[in-house]
Amino acid sequence: MKIATNIPVREVEESYINIQPIQAAGRLTAEAMKALIAYGDGYSTCDQCRKPFRLDKITKPPIAEFHDALAKFVNMDHARVTPGARRAFQAVSLALAEKGDPIIVSALAHYTEFLAAESAKAIVREVPLNDQNVVTGDALAQKIEGVTKEFGKPPVLVMLDHIDYSFANEHDIKGAAKAAHQYDIPILYNGAYTVGVMPVDGKTLGVDFVVGSGHKSMASPAPSGVLATRDEYADKVLRTTQMLGDVTGRKFGIKEVEMLGCTLMGGNILGMMASFPTIKIRVNEWEEYVKKSNHVIDSILSIKGSKCMSEYPRKHTLTKVDTTDSFDVVARTHKRRGFYFSDELKGRGIVGEFAGATRAWKLNTYGLSWDQTKYVADAFKDIANKYGLL
Amino acid sequence: MKIATNIPVREVEESYINIQPIQAAGRLTAEAMKALIAYGDGYSTCDQCRKPFRLDKITKPPIAEFHDALAKFVNMDHARVTPGARRAFQAVSLALAEKGDPIIVSALAHYTEFLAAESAKAIVREVPLNDQNVVTGDALAQKIEGVTKEFGKPPVLVMLDHIDYSFANEHDIKGAAKAAHQYDIPILYNGAYTVGVMPVDGKTLGVDFVVGSGHKSMASPAPSGVLATRDEYADKVLRTTQMLGDVTGRKFGIKEVEMLGCTLMGGNILGMMASFPTIKIRVNEWEEYVKKSNHVIDSILSIKGSKCMSEYPRKHTLTKVDTTDSFDVVARTHKRRGFYFSDELKGRGIVGEFAGATRAWKLNTYGLSWDQTKYVADAFKDIANKYGLL
Repeated sequence: MKIATNIPVREVEESYINIQPIQAAGRLTAEAMKALIAYGDGYSTCDQCRKPFRLDKITKPPIAEFHDALAKFVNMDHARVTPGARRAFQAVSLALAEKGDPIIVSALAHYTEFLAAESAKAIVREVPLNDQNVVTGDALAQKIEGVTKEFGKPPVLVMLDHIDYSFANEHDIKGAAKAAHQYDIPILYNGAYTVGVMPVDGKTLGVDFVVGSGHKSMASPAPSGVLATRDEYADKVLRTTQMLGDVTGRKFGIKEVEMLGCTLMGGNILGMMASFPTIKIRVNEWEEYVKKSNHVIDSILSIKGSKCMSEYPRKHTLTKVDTTDSFDVVARTHKRRGFYFSDELKGRGIVGEFAGATRAWKLNTYGLSWDQTKYVADAFKDIANKYGLL
Repeated sequence: MKIATNIPVREVEESYINIQPIQAAGRLTAEAMKALIAYGDGYSTCDQCRKPFRLDKITKPPIAEFHDALAKFVNMDHARVTPGARRAFQAVSLALAEKGDPIIVSALAHYTEFLAAESAKAIVREVPLNDQNVVTGDALAQKIEGVTKEFGKPPVLVMLDHIDYSFANEHDIKGAAKAAHQYDIPILYNGAYTVGVMPVDGKTLGVDFVVGSGHKSMASPAPSGVLATRDEYADKVLRTTQMLGDVTGRKFGIKEVEMLGCTLMGGNILGMMASFPTIKIRVNEWEEYVKKSNHVIDSILSIKGSKCMSEYPRKHTLTKVDTTDSFDVVARTHKRRGFYFSDELKGRGIVGEFAGATRAWKLNTYGLSWDQTKYVADAFKDIANKYGLL
């Protein structure tokens, strides 16, 4: 059965346990799915849009209320929804950087931070990691000094991932915020892997912006995301348009420049809203998910030759492992090469590892029940046992 | 019944004939709704993402094929999907404009064109309309000369709506393209009200960029849109990242700067794809929809005192009418004021006009069958008759 003649029906979540690195915390709640069905039409949000005609002011459905709740949820002063975290990086970069200005990111920064800075014609510099693959406040302070010397002016922004996309290590965002502020530089907290799965308190962390990803960690449709800011930077980043039509004298009210007016209509904003009650509860269950993550990783580490490339014990459900000296040993002589491993997992009802990869690969156990967690942990040992790797 | 405790279930399209100005051509096809259900999870598109890891290169589901088809559909060389038409305006503005560069738009330009230019730190100038409220090639040529004198340099871009959002008048995009090219200035065709409802042939029109809106005219979820370009500007607007990590030496492959990498994942791109076969057919039925539009407008004009503010006969299904001297006469003394008109329409199963507005207001008859068209046309006369306005 195909949709519109050539689109296969996807049934990954229905038929398998999915440990795909970026999909785990983005899968929709049942309520978000209902919202998609009711508000799938793009402009469905606009039925009751009245003056001043801006998405975050709409009260039916309760979009305005959601924006307030979202700001509180990350403990910041203002929140806006964006078409993905990357569009929030871009909004802040465009608002704060002039051409040629330096922006500092982590040596483990996601590529979208680089691209956001590049689209703002800024120049990116990376903070190096310590020997634990972690960014510290001291390293940032040192980099700020170096960049200031190199450019003859301080960086205009620091963007730092609390949990990076590669190892999912936890970086010292609080220390970094302190360091950035010693130099009066605003700092953006990239919470693509945190907002929506663990409690995030922007003011306690001391950051100026909190960015989250709806489709990565908030059980929301793509693209969706959140940009939250403190009062101090709202005037810049959420500034309203100053444009004036030279012929018509037109002005455009309170439309926000870096948001390009309204951002998420239809199912994407309503999906975020529908998942939000679940999100607020599940962030408090984070420690339990971390325990489950460690249970699975411990199982992999019990297989001789396996290594955990991420910091260990795990503080996150996303992990990079190295099985060059375990599962890859089999792949070297197997006729299906690395795909034997995918075959074995799939045969056990598990999908989401990068098909064919048996050296460095990632998995994310977020959302699994304890039964599923134990099942997945045992599956790895079972496969190892079958091939005499234990 | 509410979704997630506080979200009302929307049932506008299920229960009413909807003549809302911006919703008509965006409502999803049944196939798009199926795609939302199957691909609602944001990263569902990424199951089979392989090197070089870019959305428009994914073959399962057939996203790459769709991108090729989309470029052909508007007869341009390359197409990308974007989170709405506004993000396409922004991509082109950021790619072509330096701070302070002038960009020319129409005196009827949509506010998102202003904001896109503003986010690129460019300055907007408007082409005046002729006495028919239409932009002509001559007017653009004159404006280009004026702007070049004012700024001491030519504008870097012209953005022009083929059909504007206000009157839905048809502007001389072909003449404008000719004029722009006489001065070697690239021109962007804003097809938010055309791409997906009528045939659009970018090369025949002579434009450099074609922009469409998925949720406005392509029966697709929001935000979604298309940016198509000729080879000549692909190197600039679709340029790949040049970023290099100073510490890590990282490069980011073929990720495109102004797209910020991947743009539309999940239900939004799959919804576009699922509606596409319908879209390709329905653009050929455009003239019939224009006839239906004229049938409804003729009915309104048959009510004494009513005026058509848009060009007439209509060339589009979106129309601005002025009923100050017809329906508004009743509103002046009715206890429900202008809302009597909404009540009367709703009582007849028709919604989507701006509630309470009885002077200048807009309606869009796109998608109505002939039975529905006649029913709507008769409803206006019926209301007029009830209040003695005929």
